Amino acid sequence: MDSYILMDKADFDKQLSEETKWIEESIKEFLPKGTTYQKTINDAMEYSLMAGGKRLRPMIIWETYKMFGGQDKKQVLPFMAAIEMIHTYSLVHDDLPAMDNDEYRRGRKTTHIVYGEDMGILAGDALLNYAYEIAVLSLADGINIQNKAKAVQILSNKAGIFGMLGGQVADVENTGKPLSEEKLEFIYSLKTGALIEAAFMAGAVLADADNNSVKALEEAGHNIGMAFQIQDDILDITSTSEELGKPVHSDEKNDKLTYVTIYGMDKAVKAVKEYSETALDILNNLPVKNIYLNTLVEKLIGRRK
Amino acid sequence: MDSYILMDKADFDKQLSEETKWIEESIKEFLPKGTTYQKTINDAMEYSLMAGGKRLRPMIIWETYKMFGGQDKKQVLPFMAAIEMIHTYSLVHDDLPAMDNDEYRRGRKTTHIVYGEDMGILAGDALLNYAYEIAVLSLADGINIQNKAKAVQILSNKAGIFGMLGGQVADVENTGKPLSEEKLEFIYSLKTGALIEAAFMAGAVLADADNNSVKALEEAGHNIGMAFQIQDDILDITSTSEELGKPVHSDEKNDKLTYVTIYGMDKAVKAVKEYSETALDILNNLPVKNIYLNTLVEKLIGRRK
Repeated sequence: MDSYILMDKADFDKQLSEETKWIEESIKEFLPKGTTYQKTINDAMEYSLMAGGKRLRPMIIWETYKMFGGQDKKQVLPFMAAIEMIHTYSLVHDDLPAMDNDEYRRGRKTTHIVYGEDMGILAGDALLNYAYEIAVLSLADGINIQNKAKAVQILSNKAGIFGMLGGQVADVENTGKPLSEEKLEFIYSLKTGALIEAAFMAGAVLADADNNSVKALEEAGHNIGMAFQIQDDILDITSTSEELGKPVHSDEKNDKLTYVTIYGMDKAVKAVKEYSETALDILNNLPVKNIYLNTLVEKLIGRRK
Repeated sequence: MDSYILMDKADFDKQLSEETKWIEESIKEFLPKGTTYQKTINDAMEYSLMAGGKRLRPMIIWETYKMFGGQDKKQVLPFMAAIEMIHTYSLVHDDLPAMDNDEYRRGRKTTHIVYGEDMGILAGDALLNYAYEIAVLSLADGINIQNKAKAVQILSNKAGIFGMLGGQVADVENTGKPLSEEKLEFIYSLKTGALIEAAFMAGAVLADADNNSVKALEEAGHNIGMAFQIQDDILDITSTSEELGKPVHSDEKNDKLTYVTIYGMDKAVKAVKEYSETALDILNNLPVKNIYLNTLVEKLIGRRK
């Protein structure tokens, strides 16, 4: 691995905390306003979107946007809100009784438990649709329209059947079945990786980055997604329920084969390290640098929740 | 009501049949290709999308596009496919056990009955996401990009919380409850009307129609949507199951108050006529004419399924 510079822990933690707070507040502003007879779904959208979380995907968009010289918050915020809404919709639908049937997430009751199963389905639909509504509305000012159109293309492609949703389908369909390494990589790469790839690419595209850099960022996102998902499997076994804010051993409960159950803990820990280092090497070889982003990636490896 | 010209029945039926066939074939081409481990969802999307139906929304896009001078099929077909996918996603999710719990639609088993409830949810998600993927990808050629962006804005707005989905939420939430005329109009106008409005508007916008005409078409779409939905209520009572291809009296089964059960059959028939005539008057007052479209609207009133 090449050497690369990371931020001082205290400085990083301060920026992470401030940025997360700013992103939370900014995203909240994008929720629909002025609903009447459909207000319940507005509440359910807000409940789902404001349930905490790392805000990793919008943060990556923001950081790659800045990294390639982007300076206009107004131009990038709709995409940050959109990607978090897409991520949230996927969680809301994943938690449904017909899917993972989860009652808790991030220490709170899941959306369908609070609002009912019908509103759980509709809240997910509403978040997905509204994500595109926001992103596409941002094209109306005519500024940077080609790059913004490209960013929505990336978002929709990485969220859909050839991205996150495709991975989810294969995951659901293969639960409890033997998994080849190829199929496991397919699932992890799409279900978790694709939207992280989208975040890395969209931020860069909005800042008019060159195609080679966008391709490199896609590859970095893939590696980070793999590391992130395998780390999730590890935490499902090693964490306590309090740390995670949701029941542990949920994979076991759902009869799910994971990287850890298939290859063992040692190989899983090693894989997280390798994927992360590959991602950092790619970031390090870009024409521009973002030390905060490097540190964020590095920190994701050692996370406890 | 103003006088307006309609097509000869035989000519109309011929064009309707040919155009429906062409739209079916064209839309099918837009389904995803090259899926691997997520193939099941591709099948479920195709099963849902190719289940027949009037193809009313893409047909309206095509007819309003031509009406305002549009000539390039390539520019408008992605939007025709997208709106039909959005319409189909809404039907697939409406049929789910947690919603209307319908086992049959258009004479065939519903998507979740064939593919399971989890795949039913995911097939709806996949169709919604893919609709935007197709529509937004059409911006990549740079041709007519401002109008295409506007068409996606209309589509996403009319499909979402301030459109179709908002109406669905209010409908679900008010099932079995007393309904004011205002609330009933809200539900019908959004649940059924909004996507028909989007079809009228999007076709015109893609052909660079003036704003006044687009506004008038929105109003025409609203009236047609109202007439269409009330006619649906009437058919639920007067049709046979064979004619409809789904169980009749389903509103009764689901404890749903409809325009007919609230105001009676006579007022319902009268309302369909009034809404339809208003729509035809609006179409008749546009700077351009489309006799086929007028006849299509007129025919929708007397439909038996």
